Amino acid sequence: MPESHRQDLERLTDLQAMLAAFGEIGRTPKGGVTRLAASAEDGQARDAFCAWLRRQGFEVAVDRVGNLFGYLDFGEAAGSGAVYCGSHLDSQPDGGRFDGTYGVLAGACAALAVRERVRAGRLRPRHRYLVVVSWTNEEGARYQPSLLGSSVFSGALDASEALEARDGQGVSLAEALRAIDYLGDGAPPAEPDWYVELHVEQGAVLEREGRPLGIVSHCWGARKFRLRFSGQADHTGPTPMADRRDALRAASLLIAGVSERALASDGCLHGSVGRILVEPNSPNVVPRSATLFVELRAGEESLLDAAEAWLTSAIDRISEETGCRSEIEMATRRTVETFDPDGVAIAKQVVESLGLEAMTMATIAGHDALALQRRFPAMLLFVPSAGGVSHSPAEFTAEQDLERGLEALVAVLCRLLAGRPEDRDSRGRGGEA
Amino acid sequence: MPESHRQDLERLTDLQAMLAAFGEIGRTPKGGVTRLAASAEDGQARDAFCAWLRRQGFEVAVDRVGNLFGYLDFGEAAGSGAVYCGSHLDSQPDGGRFDGTYGVLAGACAALAVRERVRAGRLRPRHRYLVVVSWTNEEGARYQPSLLGSSVFSGALDASEALEARDGQGVSLAEALRAIDYLGDGAPPAEPDWYVELHVEQGAVLEREGRPLGIVSHCWGARKFRLRFSGQADHTGPTPMADRRDALRAASLLIAGVSERALASDGCLHGSVGRILVEPNSPNVVPRSATLFVELRAGEESLLDAAEAWLTSAIDRISEETGCRSEIEMATRRTVETFDPDGVAIAKQVVESLGLEAMTMATIAGHDALALQRRFPAMLLFVPSAGGVSHSPAEFTAEQDLERGLEALVAVLCRLLAGRPEDRDSRGRGGEA
Repeated sequence: MPESHRQDLERLTDLQAMLAAFGEIGRTPKGGVTRLAASAEDGQARDAFCAWLRRQGFEVAVDRVGNLFGYLDFGEAAGSGAVYCGSHLDSQPDGGRFDGTYGVLAGACAALAVRERVRAGRLRPRHRYLVVVSWTNEEGARYQPSLLGSSVFSGALDASEALEARDGQGVSLAEALRAIDYLGDGAPPAEPDWYVELHVEQGAVLEREGRPLGIVSHCWGARKFRLRFSGQADHTGPTPMADRRDALRAASLLIAGVSERALASDGCLHGSVGRILVEPNSPNVVPRSATLFVELRAGEESLLDAAEAWLTSAIDRISEETGCRSEIEMATRRTVETFDPDGVAIAKQVVESLGLEAMTMATIAGHDALALQRRFPAMLLFVPSAGGVSHSPAEFTAEQDLERGLEALVAVLCRLLAGRPEDRDSRGRGGEA
Repeated sequence: MPESHRQDLERLTDLQAMLAAFGEIGRTPKGGVTRLAASAEDGQARDAFCAWLRRQGFEVAVDRVGNLFGYLDFGEAAGSGAVYCGSHLDSQPDGGRFDGTYGVLAGACAALAVRERVRAGRLRPRHRYLVVVSWTNEEGARYQPSLLGSSVFSGALDASEALEARDGQGVSLAEALRAIDYLGDGAPPAEPDWYVELHVEQGAVLEREGRPLGIVSHCWGARKFRLRFSGQADHTGPTPMADRRDALRAASLLIAGVSERALASDGCLHGSVGRILVEPNSPNVVPRSATLFVELRAGEESLLDAAEAWLTSAIDRISEETGCRSEIEMATRRTVETFDPDGVAIAKQVVESLGLEAMTMATIAGHDALALQRRFPAMLLFVPSAGGVSHSPAEFTAEQDLERGLEALVAVLCRLLAGRPEDRDSRGRGGEA
């Protein structure tokens, strides 16, 4: 980015202008963005965001897995503790420009609005810090697992394990973060008494129901597997069909099976294979190895258990049928989760006081708020997404919806900041491991 | 390669030592080779071979698609015309070290043996030139179509079209050849009156039948397609299953279908998908595009016609079922071919005179000799391959079998060189387009 452009960006305080400016970082031909976690483009977005934070008077801290915190200090008079908001700046390859970025930039704009109210004497904060955070590798596109930075922060994932994750080229997260100078050793000034995340829905429920805002009460569970079929490289011409141990054939039977099972579930189970790696991947060599990234998602643990049992038996059956060995190399199990009911109630009350017709709803997609709420009270708010299209340059949310979300976020943050930090202790959530 | 090593290689005249030396160029951990066409490793192998040819007294010419010719000139007294032998130095990724390389190096050793006989007055050549050739991109691993250099030479493929072929990174063959300095403008001194290729079988027929040598009388046809399914990128989580247009699901249905059909054909049809490219290939994005490289092979045109008709209808059915668009981007059709019957008879007679029990047989794999024999009389000789394993580092042929093949090649070349060039004209093959 030219220096003049960056200086302009640092001065922006308008959400739409900021979204447009960040949409240029890693922009793709169809208007999406490619900002894979800890890539050069992610580094540019982080640099721009840090510069913005400092220019606007925030303190900045980067922790050991690259989570980026900007915070305002309301002084000792406000007591202790912190209220957090944020999301993530990384994206899918050619992903949407609102996914994650909206939550970070709306959080940044909301923090400015909150500070104005405090300075004008219209809000007396009872938590000392307001923190805007961008978590590392939410997407899970370049590094697995997804929700990586927020999971380390909440203690569900070991930092050293996260830093050892490797991308498709074998580059570790530690190496990638070091290359863009975001392998930090800092920490935010206090743990969150509350974490609030604002995000585009990535589904079409709000659009269909004609509601401007969603308050997420629970989340589907997900089971994610990296598995490999290993056969034998051979010539695709003379090798008799019955002698082939074709790893891509095995993979295909599994991919088709996952879709078939999910399609037959009447909407209760979602399943896909989004990534496949084939070796040697040459037109006239029988593939010797195929690595698949399989996802299964459902709203109940019993459904996930049944789906995983089916997957395991399908892998065995296909191994038997194709003569390929199989191995599950990595498994991540994200349980079905319920958000803090008090948070849902507070959000509902605040949003309704603004005259906005919110609805409580589920999320199927994972978000950093899910990782956070394993240890800290968290809220997740959705704005509508046109047609629910996501992880695509066609992702779109109208300006009016984005602004309403920001308005709601400001109101929720004010409500949380005005509440007493002791509230959380009476519910026994704060600091819970 | 160190300079000392190269000088050693130039001096080698023993086939086994030469095979071992070339097996080091692009060697892989399991003892295979990766020398993709016009890669740096292919460039090293070409450099080494050129140095060898010059050191041993051959003239060298490189044509506009990088075909590499080394030739001996027996002088005007021998008349006109040329006898060719050779194969290719490029390989599959982690392919076998004998595939192609054996035919080139055995051809080179055979040429030395023939020259000895001529010098000793034991052979009076009636063709002026003996040419050893290494054809560009036989494998079709990096560039499609396969048999590229030999097809340009025989006039079946346009040189400019061949040079415009692009690899997976978008690098054209012209660019790649220029980078290794093998985009030539030379030509061999005469067209072939005969072309003889010696190759490892890439099948287990000779091993099973206990024969040291095969004489190929005909070749299966092949139909090769690059086709693409295009769907829509979307989030693998919330997107309802029925709304997904998953290009990898479509690809999987086709891959499984191709194998199923070939498996059910009782050995009459071989079919595989060796290469697949998926976009964006991220674990939680529904794939928007999948490009497949499909091969169908059979011994009769009617079977190929039926298989292609099935493929076309399967693509349509899968498009309909998955909501993905489909497009066949490239199709190559190699017809069922019969080798020159005179060549088969000559080879049989010569080989039997050596006391070797040869058998006439078919080839399913394509070879440069097939491309040549569309225009010039060609012969294709096989030596056994252990278990028929090919396009794999496990490819293996025993030293004794390699030496018998060389012995047969020398004898065949002597027989052809001693024959009159006019022979071919009486059969109306020479120069036929």
